[in-house]
Formats: sequence, structure tokens, C-alpha cells
Amino acid sequence: MTVSYRLSEIAARLGGRVLGDAEVRISQVSTLEKARPDQISFLTNKKYHAQLASTQAGAVILGEADADATGMPRIISDNPYAYFARVSSLLNSLPEAIPGIHPSAVIGEGAVIDATASIAATAVIGAGATIGAFSVIGAGCYIGDHAVIGSHVRLYPRVVIYHDCVIGDNLIAHSGVVIGADGFGFAMDAGRWIKIPQIGRVVIGHDVEIGANTTIDRGALDDTVIEDGVKLDNQIQIAHNVRIGAHTAIAGCVGIAGSTTIGRYCRIGGSAGILGHLQIADHVEIAAFTLIGKSIREAGSYAAIFPFSKAEDWRKNTVHLRHLDDLAQRIKTLEQELKLLNSQH
Amino acid sequence: MTVSYRLSEIAARLGGRVLGDAEVRISQVSTLEKARPDQISFLTNKKYHAQLASTQAGAVILGEADADATGMPRIISDNPYAYFARVSSLLNSLPEAIPGIHPSAVIGEGAVIDATASIAATAVIGAGATIGAFSVIGAGCYIGDHAVIGSHVRLYPRVVIYHDCVIGDNLIAHSGVVIGADGFGFAMDAGRWIKIPQIGRVVIGHDVEIGANTTIDRGALDDTVIEDGVKLDNQIQIAHNVRIGAHTAIAGCVGIAGSTTIGRYCRIGGSAGILGHLQIADHVEIAAFTLIGKSIREAGSYAAIFPFSKAEDWRKNTVHLRHLDDLAQRIKTLEQELKLLNSQH
Amino acid sequence: MTVSYRLSEIAARLGGRVLGDAEVRISQVSTLEKARPDQISFLTNKKYHAQLASTQAGAVILGEADADATGMPRIISDNPYAYFARVSSLLNSLPEAIPGIHPSAVIGEGAVIDATASIAATAVIGAGATIGAFSVIGAGCYIGDHAVIGSHVRLYPRVVIYHDCVIGDNLIAHSGVVIGADGFGFAMDAGRWIKIPQIGRVVIGHDVEIGANTTIDRGALDDTVIEDGVKLDNQIQIAHNVRIGAHTAIAGCVGIAGSTTIGRYCRIGGSAGILGHLQIADHVEIAAFTLIGKSIREAGSYAAIFPFSKAEDWRKNTVHLRHLDDLAQRIKTLEQELKLLNSQH
Repeated sequence: MTVSYRLSEIAARLGGRVLGDAEVRISQVSTLEKARPDQISFLTNKKYHAQLASTQAGAVILGEADADATGMPRIISDNPYAYFARVSSLLNSLPEAIPGIHPSAVIGEGAVIDATASIAATAVIGAGATIGAFSVIGAGCYIGDHAVIGSHVRLYPRVVIYHDCVIGDNLIAHSGVVIGADGFGFAMDAGRWIKIPQIGRVVIGHDVEIGANTTIDRGALDDTVIEDGVKLDNQIQIAHNVRIGAHTAIAGCVGIAGSTTIGRYCRIGGSAGILGHLQIADHVEIAAFTLIGKSIREAGSYAAIFPFSKAEDWRKNTVHLRHLDDLAQRIKTLEQELKLLNSQH
Repeated sequence: MTVSYRLSEIAARLGGRVLGDAEVRISQVSTLEKARPDQISFLTNKKYHAQLASTQAGAVILGEADADATGMPRIISDNPYAYFARVSSLLNSLPEAIPGIHPSAVIGEGAVIDATASIAATAVIGAGATIGAFSVIGAGCYIGDHAVIGSHVRLYPRVVIYHDCVIGDNLIAHSGVVIGADGFGFAMDAGRWIKIPQIGRVVIGHDVEIGANTTIDRGALDDTVIEDGVKLDNQIQIAHNVRIGAHTAIAGCVGIAGSTTIGRYCRIGGSAGILGHLQIADHVEIAAFTLIGKSIREAGSYAAIFPFSKAEDWRKNTVHLRHLDDLAQRIKTLEQELKLLNSQH
Repeated sequence: MTVSYRLSEIAARLGGRVLGDAEVRISQVSTLEKARPDQISFLTNKKYHAQLASTQAGAVILGEADADATGMPRIISDNPYAYFARVSSLLNSLPEAIPGIHPSAVIGEGAVIDATASIAATAVIGAGATIGAFSVIGAGCYIGDHAVIGSHVRLYPRVVIYHDCVIGDNLIAHSGVVIGADGFGFAMDAGRWIKIPQIGRVVIGHDVEIGANTTIDRGALDDTVIEDGVKLDNQIQIAHNVRIGAHTAIAGCVGIAGSTTIGRYCRIGGSAGILGHLQIADHVEIAAFTLIGKSIREAGSYAAIFPFSKAEDWRKNTVHLRHLDDLAQRIKTLEQELKLLNSQH
């Protein structure tokens, strides 16, 4: 089954101004380069401007500045990329999940599952858990005892949510996500590690997305908190008692150590790390592969990437890093000697 | 249901010296800042000393040096943090798992499951596997053929243990843990990788904890070994034929390459890495984000963190790293020229 | 049950030249150091040459150059390590999976499952999915709607393959692998992230192996592609629209950002990273812990490892990294002043 909309219908639903033939029918999104006549594309990057002339797309989404850059059917929007995202969602709605509980699912005593929710095959719902309206619990998911899951949540297969965690509306969590496992807390005593029970929860706001195999640990005493609109990529590790501010986006493989608080609207690059017990301000950008070892009080971009080079150059240059203090001392000595020499003239 | 104990009862079970009112009832642990009158807290960090005066806690655990720092009900211990861990365990015992096999679990031929063990819904136990006394196999776990699981083991939902692996007593493994997958071993032959069968096992000692989504590969020929008391955080990767010494603790996202041996009582920071075929001595501390590329023969702290800065400063400074050898040569030249100049005076 | 072969039988199957007693029976592979008389070992590293004299192995695989290094039973091969891999495969064939569908598996409408395939307990197969001949779908795996799985594929327990993905023949995927989760794509609009539907697929060629808990995201518009013979270790993250060239091998914990294309026969070390929208040539080697931030057009080895040292040395040296530009300027100044001084003589 293919859905399609006239350009005029799209604008009626999503806003924007139509120029050119408003009757053209659109059934999918694509890139300018690959689009066919029943597809709509977009332009935000000047690099692709030349493709406007050659594209086979049936229509295109443009910013105000480019409104007259082509005569083809087009929608003019303040934010063409976001508009494109909305058109794509319109054309690519997720398959409706069938409400109800699959006979192979196992439901704990006292669990409250909304009649509109869908519990897939082999899912296991703990005692006293709550599943909200229109939420979809994928195959093989596990929801711990007394966990509370909001409405319109979508858990892909094999997500685990431990006991007592609280999940807001519209969460999307991909396969392999683990929410609420024990934080890493031990006390050393006479040569042995004594486990510190992790009695906090994970509390997640609304409109959060969590990528595949990401883990978020429950708090040690207080809760770990993910605020509204946070977007987490795959394979991220969030330790106990971390708080992530609203609308912050974190790329894959990042690790955030315990009790660190991250502000709102931050962007953290892939494989970066943040040590524990730090405060990161709002609107901080952290480059990929960068370890943050102190609190950041000021918005802005921060980096700590070792630049790559051919291995032989890297070896030649890097050997000096172990003697940098010596090099610095030698520069100082040179300056003093030169000063002395100059004074003698 | 809330458990509570008088301070005197706690000391009777766990040791320590009670000062002040020993009859106060304690039902939970908390921080000095947030504790309520039925809760006990602890002080180990001088930074929080001032909170002793203002805390609402019903009691506090203190070291000998602080025994008289307050008149409130208190327990004096040599190791207040470990004592706190024990009190918390007393007050927060895990829910008892019901012994027996859930009807939706699938049990392989010849598996031997202790009558006190608990096999949760949708778990799958392989042929000839052994599950020890009081062990809890969570929902959706998979235990491979002929694997041997000790007693008092707790596997959270969706843990996978491959065939023939051997697990000691008291293991705690969190969701998504994979123990015994094939190590990464291939021989290149005429432009193709030929797989080297991984015929070793994973052998895990007693009292180990493994965090969510951590992976430990089986050995290529010999076994991969995790000794007693090792604590592994989330998202760690342990390659084939690694050996981790007893009571070593490893933070999240660390990767350890094949055939490396790590000593006892080491501490490895988050996202650190250790290359293959190395030996790391006992009592070695490795900083977060540090790659260890050579064996370490001596106890102590090691680091290799690139310090972060504002992106513009980072760019300005980092450009010189690709010319560090040239800078070093120029310093040498300067020294020689200056020596010559000085000799001419 | 133990399989065993005479040396002559092994050579008849796998080629190579037998020297010494061809009747010796071999039932397992091992290292020179640990082999017993019914086991075969190999020598490729001169470091272990001395072990030839002391080994208890019943036979050994040697290169042409070492053909006469011992009088023990031996097979001479151009590539002893690959030969060893093949002998090991012969002696350690995987247990045959029983064809058919376990009664606890859940099969979607219209799924086409070859009669020789094996679907294990609690696996869930989506509507319209295809499972090829002799493929083994492990316990608790999830195959999405309309996914196509080739022949002789082996999915270990708890692998997830999302809807519409296409998997070639002979894939081995270990537990916790997630193929086809949504890529990380959002447009910022008025302070909120708008999700960009990820409508591409993951397409995987033949003879690929994927380690435990590795994730490969589906494409945003076009597909994410893994070509034939690629070998991926554990805990790797492959973002949307990445293409990995044939026979490339990637070690554990690597992250590859969106839309990057990696060539054929590359080797990427553990915990390395590659930023998005880059091109990496064929036959590129990237060291562990190295971030690649620009395209690489030329085959060769590349690195960016910060060398580790004792923590106190690291502190002393590293403090200067934040002043490297200043140091470079001071060297320049020294050079100019010295030139001036020299010119005055």
C-alpha cells in the first residue's frame, strides 16, 4: 500500500507556501540526486544547489532565500530540513501495532496494561507494572516490577526496563537498550569489594529516543534522570545519578560517569566521555573522542582530539610528548641565555 | 512492607560501636543532605562535614576520628563506607525469587537445575547445563549447552551464556551481558578471512559482578578467565584469552584486547583500553581514556589523557602536534648555535 | 564423541605435504606449549621456534622454510596459520542444528522458512520474513517483518534484525547484535528535535561475521551496506548509510559515524573512530584509539595515540599541551633574535 498526497494537501497539513504546480502527487521522500517524479526532496546545503537543475524529483522543499531558484513544484519553509522530516513522517508512518496481549507474553500479577497498548510475543511484564495508552512493547521486552511506562511509548524488541523505573510519553527505545541496571558502586573492605545496593531509579521524561544497546543505570541513592526531548544514539553508557538536561543530543559510544549533570541543548560527539561529579552548562558542544575532566561553566565548543597522521609521522612526533616538559624547560633556558647575551652587547 | 532495625540491632549484626540513642529505628539509607529521621547516613568525605550539624538523619555512621563530631545516634566503624554498604544490603534485600521453573521456560535435555533455583519466564536452558542452588535465571536468559552455573548466581533478564562456560558462585550479571561468544580470530588466506574456531571457554570465579551489555569472549584455544571478586561495569569488551586478576575493578566502556593478563587489585578508568598480549602488574591504576600499549611491570598510576580546551584553543595548539619533531629539532639547533655564540665570547 | 583423523587424511582433505609419520591420529588443535600427542599445533612466529624441540604435539603445521626444522610428523603449507584454521574447523564442527521450528517460537503470517532451517525456542519471526536453507535462528532471536535471511546463516541467541533488512549467506552474528535500528537523525525546530524517519535498510553481503552486541543502523534514505567477507568484532557501532568494503576487519568498540565509506581490506584497531561523510581508501590500517577526522585517499597505516606514562610524568608533560602554540611562537622568536645576533657578529 502506498500513501500519496498532493503538494497542496501536504501544505494544508504542515504549513509552508506552495509555488508551482500544487497538484503534483508525492508518495515518498528522497535525495535530490536519487528522487523520482513521485518523490519530494529538500535543499539546505548550498553544496547541492547545482542538483536543483538536474533532479528528477516531483517537488522540493526550499528556504525563503531559494524560493525562486527553480520553477519546479516546491514548498517554501523557514526550516526546510525540519519540514522534510515532517513530510517523511507523514509518508512513512509506523505500522499500527495491534492492541492487545500476545498469548505468548507473560504478564505479572497486578500489572495494569491499557486496552490500547500492544504487548508482543514473548514479552514479559513484571508484577504491578503500568503500560500506558497506545504504547507498543516489542517482542521479548522485559518490564520490571512496578515500572511505569507512559503512553505512545515504542519499545523495539529485547528492551529491558528494570523494576520501579518511570518512563514518560513517546519514548522510542531500540533493541538492546537496558534501563535501570545497577550502577557501579562498591566499597573496598579488607581486600574485597562490598556491593552498595543501588536503590534509586531511572526517571525518563517525555519525547526521548534511545539508540540500540545503550545503557542507563539506576541511581545509587537518588535517581538517574533523563529530561524531556533528550536524544541518545547507540551504545552509550549513562552511569548512576547522572542528569541529562532537556533536548541534549548525544552521539554513539559516549560514556558519562556517575553523578554528572549535563545541561540543556548540549551536543556531545561520538565516543566522547565525561568524568563523574561534574557540571556541564547548557548549550555546550563537546567534540568526538574528547574527555571532559572538569566542569564546564560556559556555553561553547570544547575539544581534545589527538590529530591523526601517517603512522611513521605519528611515531616521529609523538615520541616528544613524553619529553614536553623538558622541551619547555629548554626553551626557557634558551630565552634566559639569549637575554644574557643580548644584555652583554 | 518496610523493614526496620534499631541501631543496637544493626550493630549486633554488623559490628561497630553505638554511641547516642541505640533505640532509634532505621528503615533506609540516604545522604546526609536528604535523609529523614528514619534513615541512616554516613560521613567519609570531609567536604560533607558541615552537613553533620544540619542533617535530619536518625543516625549516622562515622569513623573513629569523627566519633565525637556529633551527639546524634551513631555507629562508629573502621570503614564507614563499607559499613554503610552492609546496612544498605540489610535494609534493601533483593526480592526472593520463587524456586522452580516457569512454565514458559524451555529446558534442554539432561539439564540439572537445583530445586532451590528459579528459572524465569521465557528463559532457555541448554542441554546438559547445570544451575546451582538458589541461583536466579532471569526472564529471557539463555544458558548454553553444558554450561555450569554456580550457586546464588543472579542473572538479570536477557543475559546470554554460551555453551561450556563455567560460572562461579554469587555472580551478578546484568541485562544484555554476553559471556562466551566467539573471540575475533581469523587467518587471511588468498584474500579471504578464514575463521579460527574458538574452542576455549570463559571461566568466571566467585563473587564477580558484570554490568549491562558487557561482553566476554571465549578463548581461542585456552580459556578466558575472570578471577574471584572482579567487578566489571557496563559496556566493557573483554577479548579472548584475557585473564583478569582477582578484585580488579573496571569502569564502563573499557576494551581489553586478546591474550592480555591483568593483575589483582587493578583499577581501570572508563573508556580506557589495553592492547593485546600484554602483562599488567597487580595494583595498577589506569586513568580514563588511556590506551596502554606496553606491558606494565610496576604498580602505580598511569595516564594518557589529551587535555580538553575551548575548541579554538585546541585548534591553535594542536596544529603543532604534527610538527613536534620539527620543533624539537629547532630547539636543538638553537642550543647548538647559542653554544657556539657563547664560545665565541 | 571425539572425531580424529590421520595426518594423511587431513592432507587429503585440505592439501599440503606430509613429512614424517602420516599415520598419527589427530583429534584436536592446540598450542605448541600445551599440545598433547593426539593434537596438532602450528608455527608461524619465530618467537616460538624453540618450542618445536620440546612440544608434546603429535604433529605440527609448518611453512616451507621450516620444513626440516623438526623430524616430527608435520604438514607443510604455504600458509600454516590458515591451514591450522581449516584443521581446527574440521575437528570442531558446530553441532548440527535440528531442522524445524521449536513449538515455543512465534512465526508471523506469510513468513517463508526453508525446511532445512532451524528456528530455536522463543524466537520470533516477523510477517513475510524469509529464512534460507540450513540457517539457524537462535533462541530468542527476533527477525523483523519482510527481512530476508540467506542460507547457512547462524544467529546466536538474542540477535535482532529489524524489518526489511537483507542478510547474505553464511552470516555469523553473535548474541546481542542489533541490525537495522533507526539511525540517529533529527532536525532541530523551534527548540525541539524532530525525528527523521529512517527509511533505508541494512544490506549485508555473504560470509560476514558480527561480534556480540555490535549495532548496525538502517539508512536514513538509502541503505547501510556491509560488503562480502567483512569481519566485525564486539561492541562496534556502525551508523546509518555507512558502507564497509569487502574483507575489511574491524576490532572491538569502534564507532563509525554516518555516511562514511570504508574501502576493501582495511583493518581498524580497537576503540578507533571515523567521523561522518568521509572516504577511506582500500588497504588502510588505522591504529587502536585513533580518530580519523578527514578522508584518507592513500593506502597505509595511520595513527593518533596519546602515549601513556606514569601519571606524574603525564601531568608534568601534558600541562604544556595547552600552551603549545605559545611554545612554538617562543621558538620562532628565539630563532629571529639569534639570527639578528649572528648577523651582528
